[in-house]
Amino acid sequence: MSNTEQLEYALPRDIETRSFQIIEEELGSHGLDPQTAQVVKRVIHATADFDFAKSLHFSNHAVQDGVAALKDGASVVADTTMVAAGINKRVLASFGGSVHVFVSDADVAQEARERGTTRSAISMERASRLKGPLVFAIGNAPTALLALHRLIGDRAMPTPVLVVGVPVGFVNVVESKELIMGDDMEHIVSRGRKGGSTVAAAIVNALLYLASDDRSW
Amino acid sequence: MSNTEQLEYALPRDIETRSFQIIEEELGSHGLDPQTAQVVKRVIHATADFDFAKSLHFSNHAVQDGVAALKDGASVVADTTMVAAGINKRVLASFGGSVHVFVSDADVAQEARERGTTRSAISMERASRLKGPLVFAIGNAPTALLALHRLIGDRAMPTPVLVVGVPVGFVNVVESKELIMGDDMEHIVSRGRKGGSTVAAAIVNALLYLASDDRSW
Repeated sequence: MSNTEQLEYALPRDIETRSFQIIEEELGSHGLDPQTAQVVKRVIHATADFDFAKSLHFSNHAVQDGVAALKDGASVVADTTMVAAGINKRVLASFGGSVHVFVSDADVAQEARERGTTRSAISMERASRLKGPLVFAIGNAPTALLALHRLIGDRAMPTPVLVVGVPVGFVNVVESKELIMGDDMEHIVSRGRKGGSTVAAAIVNALLYLASDDRSW
Repeated sequence: MSNTEQLEYALPRDIETRSFQIIEEELGSHGLDPQTAQVVKRVIHATADFDFAKSLHFSNHAVQDGVAALKDGASVVADTTMVAAGINKRVLASFGGSVHVFVSDADVAQEARERGTTRSAISMERASRLKGPLVFAIGNAPTALLALHRLIGDRAMPTPVLVVGVPVGFVNVVESKELIMGDDMEHIVSRGRKGGSTVAAAIVNALLYLASDDRSW
């Protein structure tokens, strides 16, 4: 085999194992409990950005409650189809959960136009009517996070098991995350501007892998 | 309206316009031509990470050829469903193009197992048989990029119009990008470890918006 072929024929599981070794070496010592550390490392694995070791903020029982709920069959609400695409639906389904995403529905677009707001905000109103324990994964739209904050504050929906609030961007993003951090519910938030669909999916997947007690997916 | 409601009811187009103003202010002076600058700014918009202003590498005619081909109806091959989900398929379809992604096909998984390689690598072999001008968008899998490098080097497929090579990670990622930069074809690459599905989709979308000569999507 040529060098290039050797690179190409590396197996996914070997690549992931070696990647996590490199991340652990470069991350160095941290004060995180093992489960929280797994979430942080998976986000770094998905972004190659060690800034997330500092910016990720976990409420007290966020990881524990998220893992327990997913193991119990909780479903996930995503703000974008990209977040939904990134979640390991095979593992989620093995516990009985599924992914809901409403942002591309035609009637959501129509209502957003009529009310002069975003499809993301309306999609959270749709999600607020879902039954059963839910994990929200918001990787893109600060308006989705703001709508969630309002719906929960108004008691217009049950408190989610966990809100993963990691929208990315320059306008209203920091503010939306700070509001969620002030709410009385479990949350995982990337403080500051950074975040994104890959970060949201990586966090949910880390919780799923912890729930399955198996890193070899 | 409360402050929170004002944040929630911001309109997407206003948010995007303001976001690009902030990015331009913070980016400062750069030596990029206007079209290349648009691609760089859209990646920063999608990541809030100004590192990409330095790490993105464009071959001489990458943006020009990519825009022209998409305008002419070229299709896009994505390495993951997440990249595919992030591409603005409405604009792509308006020119006649579509997105191909093979990584989740059952027979791709089977062949990868049999040959001891990744589904991503096999999915590029599937893509190599597609007819017509193609833009490749590789946001996740270095093995996809390595397979492309091999197939193109072996003349086992027509040279793509453009390869967007922005996988993310710690193992074989830097190497795969350096190989693509040495190949004789147009490419847009994020040097180093960073990249990702959002970066790949942002680059393709930037090219689509340039092709449509309209930033108001």
